[in-house]
Amino acid sequence: MKGKNINKLGEFGLIDFIKKHNTKPKSYHNVCLDIGDDCFSFNPHTKSKYIVTTDILIENIHFKRQWATAKQIGQKAIEVNVSDIASMGNSKPLYAFISLGIPKNISVDFVKELFNSIKNTCDKYGIHLSGGDTVGAKDITISVTLAGICDKPISRTGAKNGDLIFVTGTFGDSVAGLEILSKAKKNLTSCERNLIKKHLIPQARLKEANLISKAIKITSMTDSSDGLFKSIELLTENKGAVINMEKIPLSQNLIKYTNKDYNKLYNCALFGGEEFELVFTINKKDKTKLEKLLPNVTCIGYINNGKVTYLQNGKQKKVKYNGYKHF
Amino acid sequence: MKGKNINKLGEFGLIDFIKKHNTKPKSYHNVCLDIGDDCFSFNPHTKSKYIVTTDILIENIHFKRQWATAKQIGQKAIEVNVSDIASMGNSKPLYAFISLGIPKNISVDFVKELFNSIKNTCDKYGIHLSGGDTVGAKDITISVTLAGICDKPISRTGAKNGDLIFVTGTFGDSVAGLEILSKAKKNLTSCERNLIKKHLIPQARLKEANLISKAIKITSMTDSSDGLFKSIELLTENKGAVINMEKIPLSQNLIKYTNKDYNKLYNCALFGGEEFELVFTINKKDKTKLEKLLPNVTCIGYINNGKVTYLQNGKQKKVKYNGYKHF
Repeated sequence: MKGKNINKLGEFGLIDFIKKHNTKPKSYHNVCLDIGDDCFSFNPHTKSKYIVTTDILIENIHFKRQWATAKQIGQKAIEVNVSDIASMGNSKPLYAFISLGIPKNISVDFVKELFNSIKNTCDKYGIHLSGGDTVGAKDITISVTLAGICDKPISRTGAKNGDLIFVTGTFGDSVAGLEILSKAKKNLTSCERNLIKKHLIPQARLKEANLISKAIKITSMTDSSDGLFKSIELLTENKGAVINMEKIPLSQNLIKYTNKDYNKLYNCALFGGEEFELVFTINKKDKTKLEKLLPNVTCIGYINNGKVTYLQNGKQKKVKYNGYKHF
Repeated sequence: MKGKNINKLGEFGLIDFIKKHNTKPKSYHNVCLDIGDDCFSFNPHTKSKYIVTTDILIENIHFKRQWATAKQIGQKAIEVNVSDIASMGNSKPLYAFISLGIPKNISVDFVKELFNSIKNTCDKYGIHLSGGDTVGAKDITISVTLAGICDKPISRTGAKNGDLIFVTGTFGDSVAGLEILSKAKKNLTSCERNLIKKHLIPQARLKEANLISKAIKITSMTDSSDGLFKSIELLTENKGAVINMEKIPLSQNLIKYTNKDYNKLYNCALFGGEEFELVFTINKKDKTKLEKLLPNVTCIGYINNGKVTYLQNGKQKKVKYNGYKHF
């Protein structure tokens, strides 16, 4: 079917392809009625709580076909939702419901690659593709609703005075990668290619979230999908915090790319979205245990009763929201 | 805020508006963590099975702003999903997850009216608005995932040889209404206005589905969202049926509108989508009980072991799929 447009396959042809290539549900999915009926149905997992998240990706808003492959787009659509499930702690994603808006002039190959990538990323996490809708659209539209289970959801709002604020990974790479893509620069350096990779193929921190939340009481947690600054705002609603800016972990790639321009560096690290690190709080007594368990974490500050204050080399620095605005 | 564009309110302003105007969950929603966190969380309803459906509506594909109000669009987005939940029989919709793609140039009033309509339609069915995502988009995009519970899902495939095929309501009005809207005709007759209403404000048959499935064994059921012909195809997978075309219920409005042109009439009635009637099968022994319980049903044929055959005044008529193609 190479080169053929999706209208040669048709909506019902695509649904048949999806049905044929979808994996059978595993026993832990408790399925009563599988994908392909008016509803998907399953028996309750009685010992857990359900958790559900939803995210929508739209072409030319979240990605461009000229710089992302169908494989990367499909992968990202699932990873961003798994990241929300991860933020609940001790969780397992189970069911994905996916609506696809597909332009008429797109190739069958592209749509099949997109579907295969969605399915493979679901498989990686043991997620069953449980339902969906396929419609025509001007721009590629991928809406994912992901349901799973967890023991006890860790909310964004549970941090207590004195709790330490930790993060996984580094910040700012994804938005720097996006900037490089936007410039359509040729002859990329390896550092630029790494930044682009962080933007195009984000990885949810499900394993890390489960590891720490099983062993330690995480008092609050979120992911950094709207940028680190926004995550801190969410964890400190009606609270204060002190954030040591020089503690915010930065990759060597970002430091090199920004030529150590610290204004640009912190702009990327604080406001760059589409990054899927964990931002969470713990009681300070658990610090050593956490750092032994997961060496790839950094303490960037602590919760207090005042306002949220950013310090740079001990001096207070005014920081105002400067992130992406959808509208 | 009259006349102001949505970018004056902004994404986070809109989220605040939604949080403020969302109703508190009722006790039967079993909520652990409400809308506004990374995930929504709830305790399992242990005595029921879960059912989930998802549908996406995109501007200029499913509706046009020039002929549908924000109120009508919001209402339809929920009704079409409730219709799928209804098809499961003895069901209750509980949780809605809604992603909105919103163009920058749209008015705050429009978005608020859209949200209020979504919320009011959810309220009508006892559905809790449980999660969502708001992003920028070129066209208004509304993705709804609706979860609920039921005793035992009625699939599309349970019909047995000899079972009678029943439908609720009438067929063809919605597509006729769409045709009238597309012509942008002025000075509409009352019959034309009624057909338009059927297209713009569909009503899910939840009450009717629950009434009959509680009292009678429904052997298979679906809704007619892709048209009656497609519904019959779904209920007769690997089976046959005899459909008496003159039994297909038609409204006086449609008969008048088509000037009794029977070709056009049956084209509308069989292939017109976006109609949300129930199409279902029962054992013939339950016929009288059903008709007493719900007078607004019509038997249009029966299941057999052969092929699907359409009869017009006793004579076989060739009928080939002629419905809407998304791509």
